[in-house]
This record gives sequence, C-alpha cells and structure tokens, in this order.
Amino acid sequence: MNPESNLKKNRVLLIRCKDEAGLIHRITGFLANIGANIVGNQEFVEPLGKVFFMRTEYSLENSSKEEGLISELAKILPKDAKLTLSNPRFPKVVLLATKEPHCLGDILLRWRYGELPMELQGVVSNHEILGDLVRDFKLPFHCISSEGMSREEHEKQLNSYLRELQPDWIVLAKYMRILTPEFVKKWEHRILNIHHSFLPAFVGAKPYEQAYKRGVKIIGGTAHIVTENLDEGPILVQDVCHVDHGYSPERLVLYGRDLEKVVLSKALRLLLEDRVMIFQNRTIIFE
Amino acid sequence: MNPESNLKKNRVLLIRCKDEAGLIHRITGFLANIGANIVGNQEFVEPLGKVFFMRTEYSLENSSKEEGLISELAKILPKDAKLTLSNPRFPKVVLLATKEPHCLGDILLRWRYGELPMELQGVVSNHEILGDLVRDFKLPFHCISSEGMSREEHEKQLNSYLRELQPDWIVLAKYMRILTPEFVKKWEHRILNIHHSFLPAFVGAKPYEQAYKRGVKIIGGTAHIVTENLDEGPILVQDVCHVDHGYSPERLVLYGRDLEKVVLSKALRLLLEDRVMIFQNRTIIFE
Amino acid sequence: MNPESNLKKNRVLLIRCKDEAGLIHRITGFLANIGANIVGNQEFVEPLGKVFFMRTEYSLENSSKEEGLISELAKILPKDAKLTLSNPRFPKVVLLATKEPHCLGDILLRWRYGELPMELQGVVSNHEILGDLVRDFKLPFHCISSEGMSREEHEKQLNSYLRELQPDWIVLAKYMRILTPEFVKKWEHRILNIHHSFLPAFVGAKPYEQAYKRGVKIIGGTAHIVTENLDEGPILVQDVCHVDHGYSPERLVLYGRDLEKVVLSKALRLLLEDRVMIFQNRTIIFE
Amino acid sequence: MNPESNLKKNRVLLIRCKDEAGLIHRITGFLANIGANIVGNQEFVEPLGKVFFMRTEYSLENSSKEEGLISELAKILPKDAKLTLSNPRFPKVVLLATKEPHCLGDILLRWRYGELPMELQGVVSNHEILGDLVRDFKLPFHCISSEGMSREEHEKQLNSYLRELQPDWIVLAKYMRILTPEFVKKWEHRILNIHHSFLPAFVGAKPYEQAYKRGVKIIGGTAHIVTENLDEGPILVQDVCHVDHGYSPERLVLYGRDLEKVVLSKALRLLLEDRVMIFQNRTIIFE
Repeated sequence: MNPESNLKKNRVLLIRCKDEAGLIHRITGFLANIGANIVGNQEFVEPLGKVFFMRTEYSLENSSKEEGLISELAKILPKDAKLTLSNPRFPKVVLLATKEPHCLGDILLRWRYGELPMELQGVVSNHEILGDLVRDFKLPFHCISSEGMSREEHEKQLNSYLRELQPDWIVLAKYMRILTPEFVKKWEHRILNIHHSFLPAFVGAKPYEQAYKRGVKIIGGTAHIVTENLDEGPILVQDVCHVDHGYSPERLVLYGRDLEKVVLSKALRLLLEDRVMIFQNRTIIFE
Repeated sequence: MNPESNLKKNRVLLIRCKDEAGLIHRITGFLANIGANIVGNQEFVEPLGKVFFMRTEYSLENSSKEEGLISELAKILPKDAKLTLSNPRFPKVVLLATKEPHCLGDILLRWRYGELPMELQGVVSNHEILGDLVRDFKLPFHCISSEGMSREEHEKQLNSYLRELQPDWIVLAKYMRILTPEFVKKWEHRILNIHHSFLPAFVGAKPYEQAYKRGVKIIGGTAHIVTENLDEGPILVQDVCHVDHGYSPERLVLYGRDLEKVVLSKALRLLLEDRVMIFQNRTIIFE
Repeated sequence: MNPESNLKKNRVLLIRCKDEAGLIHRITGFLANIGANIVGNQEFVEPLGKVFFMRTEYSLENSSKEEGLISELAKILPKDAKLTLSNPRFPKVVLLATKEPHCLGDILLRWRYGELPMELQGVVSNHEILGDLVRDFKLPFHCISSEGMSREEHEKQLNSYLRELQPDWIVLAKYMRILTPEFVKKWEHRILNIHHSFLPAFVGAKPYEQAYKRGVKIIGGTAHIVTENLDEGPILVQDVCHVDHGYSPERLVLYGRDLEKVVLSKALRLLLEDRVMIFQNRTIIFE
Repeated sequence: MNPESNLKKNRVLLIRCKDEAGLIHRITGFLANIGANIVGNQEFVEPLGKVFFMRTEYSLENSSKEEGLISELAKILPKDAKLTLSNPRFPKVVLLATKEPHCLGDILLRWRYGELPMELQGVVSNHEILGDLVRDFKLPFHCISSEGMSREEHEKQLNSYLRELQPDWIVLAKYMRILTPEFVKKWEHRILNIHHSFLPAFVGAKPYEQAYKRGVKIIGGTAHIVTENLDEGPILVQDVCHVDHGYSPERLVLYGRDLEKVVLSKALRLLLEDRVMIFQNRTIIFE
C-alpha cells in the first residue's frame, strides 16, 4: 500500500472522566462549535466507580480547527479527564511469533488484503522457522534467538529492535516466551496477547492438556492486554467451541487454533480502530 | 403419573474394561444369542489409558433371558470389566434447593410434563421460601433449617431423610451449602450440582462478581458430579453466552440463570437415560 | 405483588427522527434543564436511511416538570420526530398458548419471582389442557375453544376478551393458530411470537421435521413481532444450538424447546424495559 | 512435502446397507480374522429409513490380507451394501476461487503447515487477482477467464483442465460462478462449497444484504456438497455468530468471512479424513 492510503478518513476522540450531569451535552456542543460532523457516538458509565467513558468518531473539513482541541475541551470537563485523539495515520504494528504459523499467517493474510488498518513494520521471532512465510509476504523478518542467552540479554536485543521501530502495538501471535515485568512496563498497555484457553480457566502452560484432563465440554481462546501479572491483563475478545470426551489433546489443539486466530485478529482490529478503553483490569469496548 | 408409566421401554447396558481386540464382536454376539434387539450402540476407547467404554440399548421380548446376563457376559470379557444394567424402573430423584427458584422450577415443569423420566420423590430445602412452589406441583417439600445447628447435625437430619427415600440421584438445584466430604462419600457419584460459572474459571463463591471484576466477555454454567474436592468433579454439560462491559453484576446473574437451568436439566436427563460413564475425573457421554 | 411495586423507578424516553447535526446536544440540554438525571443514554444512526434513534433512561425528583415534556421537546427536534415516554406503571400483558407448556411455564415462573416487570393479566388458550398449570399460579385462565367455529368467530371472541383487558403486549407462548391480518392490524406491533426455528429458514409449519430432512447442523429459535406477513415481522432475539445427524426429529424438538423458552423470555424482557424500537422490518435494540 | 509423507497411516472402511441384526458382530469378526487392529469404530442407524452406516478405522501389518477385502466382506452383508475402502494415498484436491482471498488463503496456510492431509494440485480462478498469492505458496495457478465466453465454453475449458488432474475433491473457495447441472453431474458428490449464510436462510445472492434488511440477530456460514439444485446439497458444517442492529452490511461481510473460512476448512478436513457419508440429502458425519 502506498503511504497515502495509510491516512484514516475519520478522527476518533476518546474521553474518560468522573461522571457528572451534562457531560454529553457539553462535549457534543463543543464539537458542533468547531464544525465537527459526528459519525458515531457511544458512552458508558461504569456503575460501581461512576466513571464516564465516551468514544466519538467525527469528520472535520477544516482540520486547522482541531488545533488545541484537547486542551480547550479539557477546560469544560472534570479535572481528572483523560482525552485521547487518534493519530491521523495508521498505527504501527510489530508481530512477535515463535514456531506456530496459524495466528501469524492469519494476520499476514488480512493485512495483505487491507482488512487490518495498520502499518505492519515486521515480524520478530526467537526461531528461524517462520522466516520463509514472512518473506513470502515481502515483510522484514528478524530472528533473535534466545539460545545461550539470559532472559535479560534476549529482551535487551528485542527492545533495541523495537525502540528503533517505535510500534504503537506489539502483537504476540503465539510468542511462547514469558516477558519480564520490566519489558511489559516499557510497553505498558501496548502489548496484545492470545491465550490458548478461556481465561481465567487454565492459566499457564499446556492449557489443552489441562483441559483434556479436566474433561471440559467447552474450550476457548482469549485475547488480552499483557500486564505484569501473567495471563491476568484486561480481556478484549473471547470465543469458545463445544467439545466432547472423544476429542484427544491433539484434536483440542486443532480446534483451539481456529479460535485463537480469529479471536486475536478481532482484538487487533478493535485496537486499530480505537475502540478499546482500559479501566482497572477491564476493557470498555465501543464496537 | 401412574406407576406403570414409570417402566422404561428399553434396557441399557454399560460396559467398561481394558481395551483388547474383539470386544465389540464378543459383546454383540452374546446379545444376539439371547435374542436382544440392539437399538443403539456406542463405543469409545480412551486413548491415554486404553480403556474401553460401551453403551448398548436393546429391547428383549423374553425377559427371562436376561437372568444372569451380567455374570455370563463378564466371563467373556477382561477381568477388570464393570458391567451395569439399567433398572427397568425410572430412577428415584430428590432435589435440594435453597432460595433461588429458577433451576428448581425448571425441573418441576419438565417433570410435570413428562420430559424427565424419573420418579421425583420430593424437595428438601434449608429455607421455607420455595415451599409454596413445590406444593403447587403437588410434591412433598421438606424444610431442614440449618439455623443454630452445626454442619454435622444438619447433614445428619438431611441424611436420615435421604436414607429413607434411597434416591438414585440427588440434584443440587442451587443448594447453597457446602457438603462435607463424609456426606459426599455416602452418596458417591450420585450427587449432581450446577455451578454458576464456566468451570474451572471462578471456582468458589460469588462467581458473577468475580466475572465482572475480571471483565470476561463470556459467562457460563457447568453441571458436574460432586466429589470431595469442591467444584472439581467430573463435568457433564457446559454452556456459555457472550456478554460485554455494559453488563452489571446483576445482569450477569440474570443471564447466568438461563444458562444454569438449561445446563442442569440437560445433565439430569443424561443421567436418567444412563448416558454418562465416569472415568478418573472425566465423563464419557454417549448422547 | 401489590400495586405499588408495579411502579417503575426510572422513566424511558424513546426518540426517532431524521438525523441532523446537534441532536444529542439539544436533547441532553433539554433534559438537564428540567432537572432530569440521566441514568443511561444510547443512540444509533441507521446508515442507509440516515435516521436517528435514541433511548434515554432518567430519574426525575419533581415529576411535575414532566408535564408537556413531549410537546416541548418536539419543538426543538426535526418535524418527523416521534417521541415516546414510558408509562410509569408496569406494562399489562396477556399470554396466548395452546397445548405446549414450556414457554408458558417459563414466563409464569419468571413472573412469579419478579424477573419480568409486568402486570400479567391472564392466559388465553384454545384448549383446556394448560388450565391447571395457570391456576396453580393463581392467574385467570380463559379457554376459547375454536371447535366448530370459523376463524373469524373465534377471533371475535378472543378480541372481545382482549378489548376488555387492553393489554400493552400480547405474547404468543406457542399459540399454534394463525392470526388473521385484521386481528394483527388491531394490535399492530403489540404481538410477540416465538418461531420454532432460525428464521428466515424453515418458515411455516413443522420446522423440526423440515430441519431433520434438510440435515442442518444447527437449529434455532426466533422471537419476533407479528406482522401481517406470517413469520416475517421484525426479529428481537435469536439463538441456536449445534446438532448432528444422530438427532431424531423428536430430539430436535426437545433441544428446540430450550431455545424457544429462553429466547421468548429474553425478548419479552426487552419489550417490558422499553429497549426495542422498530424501523422498517428491523429492530433497534438498546440493551 | 515428499511423496512418502502422502501415505496415510490407517485405512478407513465405510459401510452402508439396510439395517439387520448382527451386522456389527459380523463385520468386526471379519476384520479380526484378517488381523486388522481396529483403532476406531462408529455406527449409526438412520431411524426413518432403517439404514445402517459404519466407519471403521484400522491398521493392518500384512497388507496383502487386504486383497479382496471388499468383495469377501460384501458376501456376509445385505445385498444392497456399499463398501468403500479409503485410498492409501492423500486425496488430490483442486481449489476454485474468484477474487476473495480469505477462504483460499486459509486453506493454503493450513496445507503449507500440514494441517490438511491432501495433495493440493493447484488453484483455478476466473480472475488473475489471486495469482500472486497462490504463486507465493509455490502452487500452480491457472486463470480461465470467462470474458466473452458462454457458460458452456468456459466450463469446457475448466473441465478439460480438471480431467487432466483427476482430483478427488474440488473445493469452491468463494468461486462466484454458478455451475451447470452437467458440470455438477460429472463431478457428482465431489464438489465442496461454502455458502455465505446459514442455509436454508438466504439462499442465492447477496446474503449479507438480505440479512441486514431482514434484521437478523445471527449470521452464519454453511459448507455443503454441491448438487444440481443450487444451495440445496447435503450440509457438512455450519457455524454462526451473534450480531445486532449496529452491524452495517460491510461489517456483516467482515464477520461472515471469519465464519466462512473456518467452516469451509473444517468441512474439507472431514472429507479428507473419510468421515462423511451422504444419505439422501443429509450427511452422516463420524467425527
């Protein structure tokens, strides 16, 4: 795709503040004033914490009017208000993978045919095996082997590669290494992971074997933001399928993969379209 | 229903033994010999333990031929074989409930209209509140309050009531008390429970509040056999529904109830039709 | 329930008009002015017709302020605006059934335990068989047999009964008679039906037999508003379950019933909570 | 993959005949006699037509014993018996596509990484656009444009290409042309199609637009065998997802694609593993 096609048509404004009377009235009035044409508008008030969330998608002919929008709008909102205006360009994304191709391949295909609005910068893996696939899609593949290396050394190399690219999102497309809390903190709320189970069930390793032994009648996949506590970050998308006693662990893996790839790609699209707000350990998703 | 209608049309033979060549051949030959007309036949070989499971449903005009069937058939099967022949009468069932009516009411309705082939002996509760409902269905309601009583004393009264009735199945239709290991052992593999979550997620109390705080995008219900380890017995049926950030804990409860009642009733029907075999901590279900 | 408990806590305002800039701003401003405290707010702009839909739930201490609300608010909205303010009392509902108890029983149980905010006026059937069940719930049961009667005569009797009660909603809980267009017109957009299939598949009679012969791998249930074209009115709720070749037509019926009753009750609750707006042949549902 | 890896480990025997007493006993006895080690065994008796279906998967050390197996076994079965023994080699498959990449890409990825046990012979399309993708997977791509050509001429070219390859299965991976009854007859029961809806709803063109206008709350995908009656052949796999009024037709397409590709690939795997038997217009699937 040429660079121009990486420009978004509309802007997205995300607002979060404590709830009080008249918020929507003030915000929509402000936007009308600068000539913004609201395309879509969604709000939510979290009932326990009384926190107000809003997503507004609008188009604006005279983009000079947008200057200072955030600071001007903040003046008429509660002091704790956090406002985020989407970047006019497609978000930059780096994918991390290990050996399994199903999630990686699924994202590559969607990206190649314009289904995911992102600038895909490249793929990093701790193994060589997926390099051919990535190169067939004319994308940079970077192998950072972890052999004979401490976890810190390995992450240092990974980090120096990522710092250069400055991605908006890092997607763990079946990246089978545990990240240190330091690494996660550096890229806080910018790492998306797919967990091969219906969280919070089967936290940790070998979830399909766990599932088989436990004899569950449903398996699932969970896409979540990575936080310092492994497998406990905010959940974006989950899906499941029914299974029975006749499914061997291998068969569960096979069916699980179909869930994993669709769930991860859906979650990535939500992020790319600025539809996700994080609150405590939960997500507010304006679909 | 009059007593005659409590007779089943067909017999069900359940067999379990270590797998070896020729088992199906031998068993079906034996049944053909005594003139049994096989209506349905299902087998499964558990791949890890190499254990053979079989469910055969048959009709037999000359029921005298059935005498000694189990011992005769055992002679041509591996030594570890366990054979169970279904009782020709409907299984006897007692329901235990506390205050919530949705599972209890669902079972009462199905039973009243012949959808569950059982002899429903009565309902026990540790509260009075559901008595009216049960009596409207012309069934014995027995309140055993636990107030001012130790867990042991309470279970003793419960047990003495149950011993008299000798139910084949005890169904916990939202019975909100924890049973002691002693009680569970007395009625081993004969207690069915509905857990208000997608096990093994949210083991324990207040699963909907847990689910809300964890921000899951799917909630579920699980029907399982009660074992000494709370919420860890063999699973019979699970189902789920999609939810989003807009669902309050109260709303999750509401949607969860619909899952719970349908899942519990499905599981109960599977038991009543002799479709469930337990192996280690899993169920083999011949639907 | 005593009459006082039939009062709703909050008011619901439904608005529909052609879309134009500033609508939300004007409406929320107007409500703030009369002191309404907005509890929830949802909007939708139908992209093809550019029609604006809004549902606002609010509480108002000084209810005298509500007088003239509709006409005052209409003045600042486009001329085609349709505004509906929810009645402060629970909606009145009559159930129509025939012989099958599962949907009727499910609604009765939910109503008995306060899960459906409605004033249930009674049950009409063209058969006697469900009378016992209804009377056990201390509700009026009215049998209007259709034997030896023309469709017009039968509906005339039905209508005269309904005219007296003036229900807000008529729920067809497996009412197995086809209503004439004249009848439907009299109660336009006020009749809710459950169709025993995943519409628009298997329109018409014997859907489970059709489904079996077609060999579908999924069956479903559909709750919809009744319009003059049989089975083609706006859809409120649908759900499905997976089946396979081993399901006999009888078994499909059994599993279908579980879908039907849950789907119908969910749809009824959406109506009772003023969450449904009808546009052309579709529903906008603010959940 | 090298040719040796195209050999299957086990053999699959499919049997279909009218039901009578002792069938399983005779068949398993026969197989034991020739030293076959049965790995899995599944039977089904269609209740309306009293037809017996069986799938047996076995391994056999001395493959010379297999000679004449079909004719010998047929002697002890009812006269109408149809027996099929799986080919020891992977089935040959040709894919047909048009412009959409999602189903095609999904199958290519799974094949590349060994998830689909087939010999993929190549891809035919009536457009050039997917050629790059196919060539990146090092597979033959053959464009047979239909421009300025009658349907018969076009199919003649297609047929002459297919006759050379003699595929076991032709997979329509979003091939957007209608096949003539003559073409379908030539490849009877060997063409697999994905229909972009939950059949039998929305037969024909533009199903997502139809679905939007009808306001359905669930959309689906259906994989089926192509027969002379468009969209009415035996169904193999169906899946659905929930949608609401906020889904534009474009969004329905996006979500529909995820269903389509997973459903089609699942159906293809069932065929490749000899798990599908066709009876009248239905499938018996031994999973």
